[in-house]
Amino acid sequence: MENTVVFGLSSNKELAQEICDILGLKLGDCSVKHFADNEILVELGESVRGKNVYFVQSTSAPVNDNLMEILIGIDACERASAASISCIIPYYGYARQDRKARPRQPISSKLVAKMLEAAGCDRVVTVDLHAQQIQGFFDVPADDISALGIIADYFKEKEDIGEVVVVSPDHGGTVRARRLADMLDAPVAIIDKRRPKPNVAVAMNLLGDVSGKTAIMIDDMVDTAGTLVTGINMLKEKGAKEVYAACSHGVLSGPAIERLNGSGLKEFICTNTINQSAKQPLYKNMVVLSIAPYIAALIRAVEDKASLSEALAHAFNPRNAKK
Amino acid sequence: MENTVVFGLSSNKELAQEICDILGLKLGDCSVKHFADNEILVELGESVRGKNVYFVQSTSAPVNDNLMEILIGIDACERASAASISCIIPYYGYARQDRKARPRQPISSKLVAKMLEAAGCDRVVTVDLHAQQIQGFFDVPADDISALGIIADYFKEKEDIGEVVVVSPDHGGTVRARRLADMLDAPVAIIDKRRPKPNVAVAMNLLGDVSGKTAIMIDDMVDTAGTLVTGINMLKEKGAKEVYAACSHGVLSGPAIERLNGSGLKEFICTNTINQSAKQPLYKNMVVLSIAPYIAALIRAVEDKASLSEALAHAFNPRNAKK
Amino acid sequence: MENTVVFGLSSNKELAQEICDILGLKLGDCSVKHFADNEILVELGESVRGKNVYFVQSTSAPVNDNLMEILIGIDACERASAASISCIIPYYGYARQDRKARPRQPISSKLVAKMLEAAGCDRVVTVDLHAQQIQGFFDVPADDISALGIIADYFKEKEDIGEVVVVSPDHGGTVRARRLADMLDAPVAIIDKRRPKPNVAVAMNLLGDVSGKTAIMIDDMVDTAGTLVTGINMLKEKGAKEVYAACSHGVLSGPAIERLNGSGLKEFICTNTINQSAKQPLYKNMVVLSIAPYIAALIRAVEDKASLSEALAHAFNPRNAKK
Amino acid sequence: MENTVVFGLSSNKELAQEICDILGLKLGDCSVKHFADNEILVELGESVRGKNVYFVQSTSAPVNDNLMEILIGIDACERASAASISCIIPYYGYARQDRKARPRQPISSKLVAKMLEAAGCDRVVTVDLHAQQIQGFFDVPADDISALGIIADYFKEKEDIGEVVVVSPDHGGTVRARRLADMLDAPVAIIDKRRPKPNVAVAMNLLGDVSGKTAIMIDDMVDTAGTLVTGINMLKEKGAKEVYAACSHGVLSGPAIERLNGSGLKEFICTNTINQSAKQPLYKNMVVLSIAPYIAALIRAVEDKASLSEALAHAFNPRNAKK
Amino acid sequence: MENTVVFGLSSNKELAQEICDILGLKLGDCSVKHFADNEILVELGESVRGKNVYFVQSTSAPVNDNLMEILIGIDACERASAASISCIIPYYGYARQDRKARPRQPISSKLVAKMLEAAGCDRVVTVDLHAQQIQGFFDVPADDISALGIIADYFKEKEDIGEVVVVSPDHGGTVRARRLADMLDAPVAIIDKRRPKPNVAVAMNLLGDVSGKTAIMIDDMVDTAGTLVTGINMLKEKGAKEVYAACSHGVLSGPAIERLNGSGLKEFICTNTINQSAKQPLYKNMVVLSIAPYIAALIRAVEDKASLSEALAHAFNPRNAKK
Amino acid sequence: MENTVVFGLSSNKELAQEICDILGLKLGDCSVKHFADNEILVELGESVRGKNVYFVQSTSAPVNDNLMEILIGIDACERASAASISCIIPYYGYARQDRKARPRQPISSKLVAKMLEAAGCDRVVTVDLHAQQIQGFFDVPADDISALGIIADYFKEKEDIGEVVVVSPDHGGTVRARRLADMLDAPVAIIDKRRPKPNVAVAMNLLGDVSGKTAIMIDDMVDTAGTLVTGINMLKEKGAKEVYAACSHGVLSGPAIERLNGSGLKEFICTNTINQSAKQPLYKNMVVLSIAPYIAALIRAVEDKASLSEALAHAFNPRNAKK
Repeated sequence: MENTVVFGLSSNKELAQEICDILGLKLGDCSVKHFADNEILVELGESVRGKNVYFVQSTSAPVNDNLMEILIGIDACERASAASISCIIPYYGYARQDRKARPRQPISSKLVAKMLEAAGCDRVVTVDLHAQQIQGFFDVPADDISALGIIADYFKEKEDIGEVVVVSPDHGGTVRARRLADMLDAPVAIIDKRRPKPNVAVAMNLLGDVSGKTAIMIDDMVDTAGTLVTGINMLKEKGAKEVYAACSHGVLSGPAIERLNGSGLKEFICTNTINQSAKQPLYKNMVVLSIAPYIAALIRAVEDKASLSEALAHAFNPRNAKK
Repeated sequence: MENTVVFGLSSNKELAQEICDILGLKLGDCSVKHFADNEILVELGESVRGKNVYFVQSTSAPVNDNLMEILIGIDACERASAASISCIIPYYGYARQDRKARPRQPISSKLVAKMLEAAGCDRVVTVDLHAQQIQGFFDVPADDISALGIIADYFKEKEDIGEVVVVSPDHGGTVRARRLADMLDAPVAIIDKRRPKPNVAVAMNLLGDVSGKTAIMIDDMVDTAGTLVTGINMLKEKGAKEVYAACSHGVLSGPAIERLNGSGLKEFICTNTINQSAKQPLYKNMVVLSIAPYIAALIRAVEDKASLSEALAHAFNPRNAKK
Repeated sequence: MENTVVFGLSSNKELAQEICDILGLKLGDCSVKHFADNEILVELGESVRGKNVYFVQSTSAPVNDNLMEILIGIDACERASAASISCIIPYYGYARQDRKARPRQPISSKLVAKMLEAAGCDRVVTVDLHAQQIQGFFDVPADDISALGIIADYFKEKEDIGEVVVVSPDHGGTVRARRLADMLDAPVAIIDKRRPKPNVAVAMNLLGDVSGKTAIMIDDMVDTAGTLVTGINMLKEKGAKEVYAACSHGVLSGPAIERLNGSGLKEFICTNTINQSAKQPLYKNMVVLSIAPYIAALIRAVEDKASLSEALAHAFNPRNAKK
Repeated sequence: MENTVVFGLSSNKELAQEICDILGLKLGDCSVKHFADNEILVELGESVRGKNVYFVQSTSAPVNDNLMEILIGIDACERASAASISCIIPYYGYARQDRKARPRQPISSKLVAKMLEAAGCDRVVTVDLHAQQIQGFFDVPADDISALGIIADYFKEKEDIGEVVVVSPDHGGTVRARRLADMLDAPVAIIDKRRPKPNVAVAMNLLGDVSGKTAIMIDDMVDTAGTLVTGINMLKEKGAKEVYAACSHGVLSGPAIERLNGSGLKEFICTNTINQSAKQPLYKNMVVLSIAPYIAALIRAVEDKASLSEALAHAFNPRNAKK
Repeated sequence: MENTVVFGLSSNKELAQEICDILGLKLGDCSVKHFADNEILVELGESVRGKNVYFVQSTSAPVNDNLMEILIGIDACERASAASISCIIPYYGYARQDRKARPRQPISSKLVAKMLEAAGCDRVVTVDLHAQQIQGFFDVPADDISALGIIADYFKEKEDIGEVVVVSPDHGGTVRARRLADMLDAPVAIIDKRRPKPNVAVAMNLLGDVSGKTAIMIDDMVDTAGTLVTGINMLKEKGAKEVYAACSHGVLSGPAIERLNGSGLKEFICTNTINQSAKQPLYKNMVVLSIAPYIAALIRAVEDKASLSEALAHAFNPRNAKK
Repeated sequence: MENTVVFGLSSNKELAQEICDILGLKLGDCSVKHFADNEILVELGESVRGKNVYFVQSTSAPVNDNLMEILIGIDACERASAASISCIIPYYGYARQDRKARPRQPISSKLVAKMLEAAGCDRVVTVDLHAQQIQGFFDVPADDISALGIIADYFKEKEDIGEVVVVSPDHGGTVRARRLADMLDAPVAIIDKRRPKPNVAVAMNLLGDVSGKTAIMIDDMVDTAGTLVTGINMLKEKGAKEVYAACSHGVLSGPAIERLNGSGLKEFICTNTINQSAKQPLYKNMVVLSIAPYIAALIRAVEDKASLSEALAHAFNPRNAKK
């Protein structure tokens, strides 16, 4: 892999290092300066002429700075004659703005895709996109890797978890819940929110049964954790023995950590698509699973011109959860 | 609207005529020839120089011929110096190929979007896209109109329908079912299919309660009607008093009509996004609602540079269902 | 050639197999599904990551389905990270719509070129384009191979053919007739049709002399065979001893086979740019020459980064005509 | 037409003035500087903000300077916010490089099309393109106007021309000859050149009969006039009473004028697609027909959003030939 | 101007309001939300269908958030069918990254241009770009307005300013200094920095004479004010009577305000390309000149399809400086 | 370097040969025909299929012909399936039209960049662009090499040159003068032209001191040499001992050689970015330095996928000046 350079930008340096360790590569040399006036300069510390470059950068908060970093990095590589530029964006920000939900709204996740392509990105890799259709926002190859298998494996390893039910916190997540339930050979339940008329409180209802069972709430991301906490309370009222929450992306903005601390959750499981080294110490029940083996396997498959689906099938080692 | 030309291509000439009648326009003169060797020639029978052209054409079966008709039509208008070219595609074919569900799959609905734009399309209008994210496959403005309100209005008009429950035939349709249920102030139920292991039959389960109620199954489209019929049987087993099925797009291919005739459905409601004049006589319980008022309102809003959302809010007249 | 994958789509599986046999390659694994509602799904059965892919597919009837197959195939390969995608389209449909012959006509053969490029095609190979200028409709490299040499070789092999005259069936084909005549060291004749005024019959005239000679009518394609049969009759009236007809593309739609059977032609020679395995048994005087050696030579030249013109010069083996 | 600006660049100022006179417009103010080092600067002398701009410029010799003038002019208008930019290129240079006639050749006429579009051209108008397929090299609307009708009208006006035969100087021009012959209700003849083997002289042959008739040789352009003069000699040998030559484009480079003076032609008829004011005095039998009425009619149709084909049908006044 | 909508985004709402006041327009209704996770949503509060939209937004700090706001705003307008979208970016951030100053650097100001165009921007207006060549980074019309005239007028109004010399703080700004000096009919001086060898201090030198004169230092922008303060000290040493500093863009990041307070400047003059309402109270010698009349004149010229250069020539009213 | 082909077009065949000699390559076989009507045809005499092609061609006078040559050459290579196409344009014509200096001007150097990219150029290499920002006019990698080091080295080699001052002939060249001065450890002086009011003569002034020193005037290019000669006279008046003039590009159009002969210059130093073999004999004090080692080093770095900055640092051999 002498033609391969992996750069880690600000959001995910640790993950980039972890990937390089698996691949036996030295992390690429690349300086990112943030000036007093807030502008960013990305300077490559080594030649990329004729090389295959991989940037590892999530567009998590501060999302616009992180996005600009990768765009400027692409431009630098493009002008420095890199052979190809792949963007590994484990958490793809703005993903929830993926359609015109109301008139005159933007589709910002398409906009981000256009910007990456306009800058010169040749390939995109994401993890559990909010909507898989976002792959189609790209004209370049876009591979979306699922971390659901990692999460399922984590639960399968638990010995004393009892009878499980997988719960979707809303109607938008039922397909994901059903997929995880299939992996765990479990039933599903769905929290059904009825949209109130003006001046009527939201009515919440549970479709399916959680009584006496261990409930695993699954979502693609947890942001301010408001919906999650409401859901936990309901599941407990409905008789759930214990409640776990799992997601691919622990966005955890605003009051999220505080809410989790008061939530009565048994565990909160997420992955390192977003770096959690600052937040994990603040909430003792947080489990962070690493996606590095998947990303490393993908890079190796691309460099070896080998089948990606086969590579991913063999990539995961369930022992590398960081508690 | 002297600068407006509306052309109806092969799939939807009747709808185009209906739209023109509402707008007080003469249907545009445009000949579509299918040659012995299967090639298509679209020739415009009137000048479009400096005009705003609207094609009305669903990419329903024969989908590839219908798609090619509109692409060739766009090319003819582009080269004949039309001011703008809008494609009204009430049923957008290939919509289910909207993501890589498995490795090495195409995203054909993005491909179709690229083809329309490459040909010269300036605006796209669709009805109830299989996934709303497909709007983002376009760089040109793409408006997706929902026919759910027309369907809800149809049911609200019924006097003797009793207590209603809206049923989603699978996990992918729960958001839509919840939206219709909100319109009808009704609860929802979901048919939950468990993916079998090899050599194990699919297990079906119902989340929610239909017993003694009138069940309305709702989906965006009904194709071969296999899932629908299985669902009807289950709902009857679970005690549903009567079952209606409604959808925006009556694709109804292969054995669909035969299955509907044997299904015991009270009514099958769809819209004229796909022309049903050949199939409606074959199944007496089919109700076809017209979307022409919506499309006409949209064209008028575009031509008047007026707000589309306001125009649509006032467009529908619930009396124009064709039984 | 371990990085080379050749896929044969529906129109030309046999030709693709023949090419692979010459190259010593296994035909690529690729499934093409046609669903009940007429949509197509192309799924690649093997990894193309980093590979040079060649699709073999003529856009002969059903032209729109065949075109869509190759476009979807390109999209699948593009998203599966193929290194390059070449489209070998031996018969390029819609080629006759290559200019605005009348106001407000499309230029569909340019449209098809745009669609192939928009989908992600990196190179196009065609055989005897209706107009060579169509090469210029592409921005990607487009090589047009001539089968005229194969046809000339076929006639040179005949021992008892007598004095030959090459005949162009109309003014549009005179350059081609002159080229074949040069190869056979023969004179030319031209069928000259005078455009009638309204209510006056077409006047036909022969420029040149065929009396007592063996006439070879040459065209790029024969579609419904109407012009051909009229020409044969005239040549016989003018004293031609025997009449052969040759073309690169045996489109043969509608009444063509019936007309050929009643035409009194000595032989009808075409190539396998369009698969003739269904039609050849219906007309005993049909000779089909294979272009596989040319295509195979081209693929080898591309893969070896060698001169294509030299490769083609050595490609043809005149013995592989299939009678 | 207050929003219309017509600029005449170096090749065709007179034609631009003539067009403006017909339209009742003042010729646009635009300075073209050629610097000592050969660079060109086009500066607009009036605001074009929001205007429809028409450049009149043939890419005749000096072709590259003339091409660069129009490209720079487009850029200036684009950056000065013109509403639309139309290029009227009566003689489209590089048109003969319209396909790869041999391996590794460019397709320069496509290249020129790409350059015009890349610069910002919104519409192209040409006269008698060498190959009509060049229209398809453009993605923007490209209208090719035929001057054949003007030429036909010119001959119809002649009172004493006797029995006419239209002659194509080679196989590539037979369709054009047939079209002119249809307009004049005349037969055609074709000069048939047999490609010699190495060390064998070209054999020339006449298909059709000119004996005792007035021969009109027709071509799209006459460049060095070599082919023309050879043809004239042959026609006289074959008994033609008198020979006229007509073409749309009098390129007349190198020894052309000298050859014409010694050719024995009755008249040489061309149009003002290329300015002939320097050459006409050098050859007394030259007749130059003006295309200005056609171009003026086209501009008016575009500005009025009216049918172009109807406009052209009424445009020509046969009295404006300049002898 | 009923088809005109002006939106002010976060960086420059006051300027947008000022422009609307001059034009007699209501400021457009547009909400900009910043979510807890840092993502931005721009929602248009009024229909822009068929309207000409103008965004007023400087990409000053926080530059990446401000840039993303305008990009998302463009996307929303594009999808809501605006007729045209103009971006008025008085301070164009990242302008100093306008070339590869060292190997492997990005050209971020080109990148920003590409992003604006990819999003759908139709026109760009800037004020005193760091390098005028940045206009050429755009394919859409890009007008760069100079505020130098406003600054010159400000000084011409001063009655007691004495003999003036205009000083460029470095070699990169000499052309600008000369232009201002021409406007004030004054001489120039240049601060000449000699690049030290390793371990040698920077040598500063003054080219020209400031002794006994009022020195006006002019630059396009003042960022951290370090260079400025060093320059002031030198000018005082060289005998300048008083020192003014003027610039178009008061970036004023980091220690700038503190440095200005200790600088002994008579006045610091800048414009409102960057909003100074927070900083102006912190430094009493700051004078802010408004560019609103220029921008308003430009919008009016565009809407009236009138000459921009004439409009600007009459735009400025020197009385509207805000002290 | 078996995959490398270097073609020299008309402007710079000698330089191309020199580069090939350094690299040990045979100069590529490529014929450039100029026809009687001024059109150009570039035909490749060898296969470039899969090769990396480098064109060496300055767009010096005749600039439009030279530009068209390289564009046509690119098109030929693109269609002949070259792997990559690099344009080495040592003198980049139209560089001075790099911004809108006045309203309604073109930005022709951006236009040229667009044309090169539209034709298919994958990489551009230039020498001392008039403005370095022109790199940003390209989306493909654009490397601008500086010949200033070659010029500095040339002066450092001189033994008897005395005390040196580097002079900028105008304000636009001060940064360049400062850079050369730093290389020579010398002071700078600047010729300061005051723009006259109408009917007032230009006032010239010298900032800095040249008295008793050897003045080296430095510019990027010398065109008609008018400014240069005026400057020389002034420097002599101000007491300069001797005057040298140096530049990267000796455009030398119009009266330049005559002026140089009468200028009293000690030496005029330029490089072979523009071929001087016709002009050097006409002025005996002309020294031409070769940039071939730089270009050769660059090609080798690209082919070896090695760092370009390191390659250039070791490229120059100061002995290869041609007097």
